[in-house]
Amino acid sequence: MNILINGQSADSISVLDRGLQYGDGLFETMAVIDGACPFWNAHMQRLQQGCERLQLPVPESSLLQAEADALVRHEKRAVLKLILSRGEGGRGYRYPDPIQPSRIFIRHPWPDYPQQNRREGVHVRFCSTTLARQPALAGLKHLNRLEQVLARNEWQEAQIAEGLMLDENGNVIEGTMSNLFMVQNDILYTPDLSACGVAGIMRETILELARNADMAVRVTNITKDHLCEADEIFLTNSLIGIWPVNRLEGQTFAVGEISRRLQMLINRDYPRIYV
Amino acid sequence: MNILINGQSADSISVLDRGLQYGDGLFETMAVIDGACPFWNAHMQRLQQGCERLQLPVPESSLLQAEADALVRHEKRAVLKLILSRGEGGRGYRYPDPIQPSRIFIRHPWPDYPQQNRREGVHVRFCSTTLARQPALAGLKHLNRLEQVLARNEWQEAQIAEGLMLDENGNVIEGTMSNLFMVQNDILYTPDLSACGVAGIMRETILELARNADMAVRVTNITKDHLCEADEIFLTNSLIGIWPVNRLEGQTFAVGEISRRLQMLINRDYPRIYV
Repeated sequence: MNILINGQSADSISVLDRGLQYGDGLFETMAVIDGACPFWNAHMQRLQQGCERLQLPVPESSLLQAEADALVRHEKRAVLKLILSRGEGGRGYRYPDPIQPSRIFIRHPWPDYPQQNRREGVHVRFCSTTLARQPALAGLKHLNRLEQVLARNEWQEAQIAEGLMLDENGNVIEGTMSNLFMVQNDILYTPDLSACGVAGIMRETILELARNADMAVRVTNITKDHLCEADEIFLTNSLIGIWPVNRLEGQTFAVGEISRRLQMLINRDYPRIYV
Repeated sequence: MNILINGQSADSISVLDRGLQYGDGLFETMAVIDGACPFWNAHMQRLQQGCERLQLPVPESSLLQAEADALVRHEKRAVLKLILSRGEGGRGYRYPDPIQPSRIFIRHPWPDYPQQNRREGVHVRFCSTTLARQPALAGLKHLNRLEQVLARNEWQEAQIAEGLMLDENGNVIEGTMSNLFMVQNDILYTPDLSACGVAGIMRETILELARNADMAVRVTNITKDHLCEADEIFLTNSLIGIWPVNRLEGQTFAVGEISRRLQMLINRDYPRIYV
């Protein structure tokens, strides 16, 4: 059993579910280590904020906790994905009344990313698929992910680990599956996500760790040119932790001190995940 | 039996399908009359163009035809929805190899919109949810429809039939479920859809009918102010045909001659649907 739908072991869902029909819902992708999700509270907080913005009822937290626990308690290492859709019904785009969300928990194996990605860094490219500016959805981890799908399939080369996406105005926003940070003159920068992008749990965690460590932090617009002048660049998400970027298109970057220090702080607070 | 999934009678789909996971797919909503889909060829042509743009393999047309026929041949009046997703698999956003799309045909009852909508017109409002500008997806009837979901749920009043959506630049683009036309000084205008919006089958049909009838036609950007100066406004889709707008926010509009003439031309070429 690796899937629970509304608490029941199952692997399929009605084709009338609005998650399929319209992408009407949210998701969370969570690291599992030693039978638990170390970032559970942060994921649940983001889910709740997403539900408020999409006017989705939030399931009971004890229910979500029990269902997650049933799937992960015996797992040393895994990934737990939660999809929360608006369920079935409604007339066209109109919400059903009442809204009865579908809770879908799926346990996946831990991905086999090379360990050297964290140690030595990764090669990265720019994607030509842009992120549309949509403040109503910005920051949310929602089910409308065609932009990421198109962007990720712009390249096939196995040595390129991630592609960076820009908005229509030329601001670099994030990777297809990760958030982006850069360091310049000991200042940590990450793109502003008020018009597009996903506010990742690892991004929030790193921003908090950096502020607590008295690093200078700027959440702001970052152009392609600004990014290419960086001393350090790194990518983040809950499954990869921190991947330094050692090459962006033709340009090489060193794995820098601040990247290393943040990796260490993450490993101190969330041990045994990113090894 | 009112659903066929890959040719089999069924009503549920794997939760791993990329249609649910990412909204990675397309759909068509087709009018059914007297056992057939009168706009079938146009829908199939748009589906094929959408597949090319999303790099989705196009199913055999004979297969789609046979499956549609099995669901509609005994129906006097119905709606046939086809969802074509990228199927299961892939690593994250990356396409599976090979891509095996899921074909989902769902037959719905014909919607009970009031007949007077076509005769006397409808009340319409502006939505505050905007359409993001995304040329890579513009025109496509894809499964990422959260903007329409949010926009449609901005109002509850039963007397308001549709909401109009603008892009970030203040251009009026379309309704939540319909395309938009306006008439001014005997010229027929409809918004340019190169940055956002769905290129509806009824919109294309009307543009062709109008050009064949030697009407002056402009596909262009339309601001809110320009729209409010219109002599006639109407909404279109395959299920409603043409609905004149008789009120937009506080302003009233007459049901005009060109709206009537286009309704007549549609009824001449596609009889018995919009009655």
